[in-house]
Amino acid sequence: MRVLGVDPGLTRCGIGVVEGTTGRPLRMVAVGVVRTDAGSATAGRLVLIERGIEEWLDAHRPEAVAVERVFSQHNVRTVMGTAQASAVAMLCAARRGLPVALHTPSEVKAAVTGSGRADKAQVGAMVTRLLRLAAPPRPADAADALALAICHIWRAPAHNRLEQAHAAAAGRGAVRPSKDSST
Amino acid sequence: MRVLGVDPGLTRCGIGVVEGTTGRPLRMVAVGVVRTDAGSATAGRLVLIERGIEEWLDAHRPEAVAVERVFSQHNVRTVMGTAQASAVAMLCAARRGLPVALHTPSEVKAAVTGSGRADKAQVGAMVTRLLRLAAPPRPADAADALALAICHIWRAPAHNRLEQAHAAAAGRGAVRPSKDSST
Repeated sequence: MRVLGVDPGLTRCGIGVVEGTTGRPLRMVAVGVVRTDAGSATAGRLVLIERGIEEWLDAHRPEAVAVERVFSQHNVRTVMGTAQASAVAMLCAARRGLPVALHTPSEVKAAVTGSGRADKAQVGAMVTRLLRLAAPPRPADAADALALAICHIWRAPAHNRLEQAHAAAAGRGAVRPSKDSST
Repeated sequence: MRVLGVDPGLTRCGIGVVEGTTGRPLRMVAVGVVRTDAGSATAGRLVLIERGIEEWLDAHRPEAVAVERVFSQHNVRTVMGTAQASAVAMLCAARRGLPVALHTPSEVKAAVTGSGRADKAQVGAMVTRLLRLAAPPRPADAADALALAICHIWRAPAHNRLEQAHAAAAGRGAVRPSKDSST
């Protein structure tokens, strides 16, 4: 499974592509950052982010896109830009028919470090180890995008079973997952 | 001057097109709402909003797009969706090279009613009067989109003079507008 992770931001939008399946070693395909000028108008910055993400999707053809779920309790000044950049990432993926998953920062931290409260350095160190890199990816946004992709690869099987359970339950007119839903 | 106003939202994205210049009667070209299902995934909803806005831009060929500026001090649950829908509107406009202007809700209210604290009914009543409509446009999101377009038409001359002043000042290595900047 090849996943493109996006750590959304207007100034630095981290992008990382990881390949792998649960229980097998992961492989980093590519990592980088789409940058836009903080002094420019938002509308133009969104166009540059769209162009950047499209290039990454064209170049690496992921099967799924994982985007950080933005919460509004964060820094009020930056959260709007983060929400807007995440909208562009979701739009680019969904327009191509790619499945889009949102993971919260604590889900991502818990997936790669075992703790939902891990700091940036810890996430960077684990991403480096899990992908067998020579050094932590820089900037931190790039490392976070890889962590998102890893989180998605590891969470996807459980996530898919849950979706199937809901679909099966909906098909039967019920809403609770049943025992046979993971088959 | 023909302006397309967007009152951004994931469930109801109000769109209104108004034609006119300062000091002349305004004319409503079209008004409506792009709706998406609140039960669907955000990524797919953003694709539908993009498609809807593109259709409006194709059909009405505005010279500028005015979008409500989203503040994060609003309702925490809806603000993220509003920010994401506004990103799609800005993206669609900027991709076509159209100028994008952001106006705050109080700027819009002040432009059409004279008071930045006017309520929905007052805005609806003034939009109806200014555009000589038989009844206030429904839903309120549609009326707000028209109000945004009106606000932009009336603010644009001042806004353009300010931009020119800044450009002129920047060209001289100064940052303050000078007396000849509006010529």
